[in-house]
Amino acid sequence: MTNRAWHLKSRPQGMPTMDNFELKPLGDRPLAEGEVRVRNAWLSVDPYMRGRMNDVKSYVPAFEVGAPLQGGAVGKVIESRAPGLAEGDTVFHMLGWREEAVGPAEAFNKVPPMPVPNEAWLGNLGLTGGTAYFGLLRAAQAKEGDIVFVSAAAGAVGSAVVQIAKAKGMTVIGSAGGAEKCAWVKELGADAVVDYKAEPIVQGLQKAAPKGIDVYFDNVGGDHLDAALASARNNARFAICGMIDGYNGAPPAALRYIMRIIAARIMLKGFIYTDYMGEVGEFYRDMGGWLASGQVKSRETVRDGIEAAPDAFLDLFRGGNTGKMLVKL
Amino acid sequence: MTNRAWHLKSRPQGMPTMDNFELKPLGDRPLAEGEVRVRNAWLSVDPYMRGRMNDVKSYVPAFEVGAPLQGGAVGKVIESRAPGLAEGDTVFHMLGWREEAVGPAEAFNKVPPMPVPNEAWLGNLGLTGGTAYFGLLRAAQAKEGDIVFVSAAAGAVGSAVVQIAKAKGMTVIGSAGGAEKCAWVKELGADAVVDYKAEPIVQGLQKAAPKGIDVYFDNVGGDHLDAALASARNNARFAICGMIDGYNGAPPAALRYIMRIIAARIMLKGFIYTDYMGEVGEFYRDMGGWLASGQVKSRETVRDGIEAAPDAFLDLFRGGNTGKMLVKL
Repeated sequence: MTNRAWHLKSRPQGMPTMDNFELKPLGDRPLAEGEVRVRNAWLSVDPYMRGRMNDVKSYVPAFEVGAPLQGGAVGKVIESRAPGLAEGDTVFHMLGWREEAVGPAEAFNKVPPMPVPNEAWLGNLGLTGGTAYFGLLRAAQAKEGDIVFVSAAAGAVGSAVVQIAKAKGMTVIGSAGGAEKCAWVKELGADAVVDYKAEPIVQGLQKAAPKGIDVYFDNVGGDHLDAALASARNNARFAICGMIDGYNGAPPAALRYIMRIIAARIMLKGFIYTDYMGEVGEFYRDMGGWLASGQVKSRETVRDGIEAAPDAFLDLFRGGNTGKMLVKL
Repeated sequence: MTNRAWHLKSRPQGMPTMDNFELKPLGDRPLAEGEVRVRNAWLSVDPYMRGRMNDVKSYVPAFEVGAPLQGGAVGKVIESRAPGLAEGDTVFHMLGWREEAVGPAEAFNKVPPMPVPNEAWLGNLGLTGGTAYFGLLRAAQAKEGDIVFVSAAAGAVGSAVVQIAKAKGMTVIGSAGGAEKCAWVKELGADAVVDYKAEPIVQGLQKAAPKGIDVYFDNVGGDHLDAALASARNNARFAICGMIDGYNGAPPAALRYIMRIIAARIMLKGFIYTDYMGEVGEFYRDMGGWLASGQVKSRETVRDGIEAAPDAFLDLFRGGNTGKMLVKL
């Protein structure tokens, strides 16, 4: 079996290209005491990884040039010198972008015994679903009866937000680009969808939510954030999760409606999934129940083979995915 | 005695000019049962009044063209047909921009028995001090030990924020325009002052607060808000009080550092003084104590005569005031 990993060949300037990535053999080494070897089955690509490609200090360390990339992955233990993990165990972990992961047992989490497919631990039960859950219910304090707007509603996190909000009795307006994605967001249960490619998002949102919005889940920044400011009702809460439009160095949009923060007493709150790790049990219980009942459905765009990883990642910024983007090895 | 009032002659486009204002006799009328007549002694001019000159719905109704302007004022009851108020009582109220105010007794507040000059009810014990107090301590949840940045620190609200923050054991960095104002902010007790006319505020703040800031009290918006985003530490809280740079229709500044909201988990919260009216007793007690002990000092720029009111108001946007701007009748 080959054991290759995608390495960061050079730091991207603006939108990354294939030239920034290099697939190279990772080499084998015997396990040290306490280590395990995992054969990866699924890799996750996520927009936040773009930030780690820059040489700046942030909430996760920058990737190093010449080193393998990292990211969420699910795999099976194929060799173990650690008491807690045995050959055949399925684990999720952060040593993705590679075929085989070697490291101390603490770096790998045995999947909880729940009747879900393995890749769910990268999607609705992983970073994606957790970001949607805690952002909506904690950072934005959304509650039953609220009118919720979520941008990039056809994306991984956005599509989870739509479904969680409906499961919790909220009214949901999503935005997406193009008729096909919009139809799909409607299918997920959204009460209204705005096609931002068909009309300016400010007007589109005003039509879709004539009474305004109580909550905004921001995956996009820029003109979507501005539209949410324009439509915010008094005491609206915004969870700021991603600003994908700024990840690749595009000039920041001027926010024409930012002064409404004062008159409408809006709260904006940035957050990271891992801030809420202490409450992950509640998340597993809720999300597990919704997956079992079908109230939340997994929606994935799957690419095949490790060779496909960089292109899958780049497609996140081109709108190439519907739902969670995964690479199947 | 004359009884004139400043009327809104026309709605300003961008920065108001003297042509938008007209001083006209208000006319006399006998009091109805339950009404009082008040001779104003002090008028307040505040930046928020600019918003009321536009024809838009906001948290306070728009001024009407052809009608007298309104605003904070302190005066003395000269005639009463209401049981609760007697001739000679000093009251604060919202029927400013005029020499005499007539209305139902409920529209006038008898000043509490505290050893402060009457104009304090427009300044440190009024909208100005209350905005500083509740914005800093409630909206931004500032606490002892925090590093606080406040923009327009030589202004009415800003200079109160500086002094309240020092009284509560915080480290304070203020910004102001020009050496004279900066020296004055230092005198108020600020630990450091950034002269935004001498250097870009982003760099100035980074030098003045090399460890970053926990709290930002925003009176300005634009590049100051951007600088605060750039310097925010994890879990920083921003109270958004005013965005004076946008009041007169200047194009909104692009926020280059807005993405830091996520990595640093920043919270922004818009607020209005009147949201906290339920806690005004605590504010009077704290601020009264600080005024008595000299920990908070009143700082005023006083203009003489009702004729001076529009120019005093316009000077708020030209940096013409140090501390609270008042008009003495």
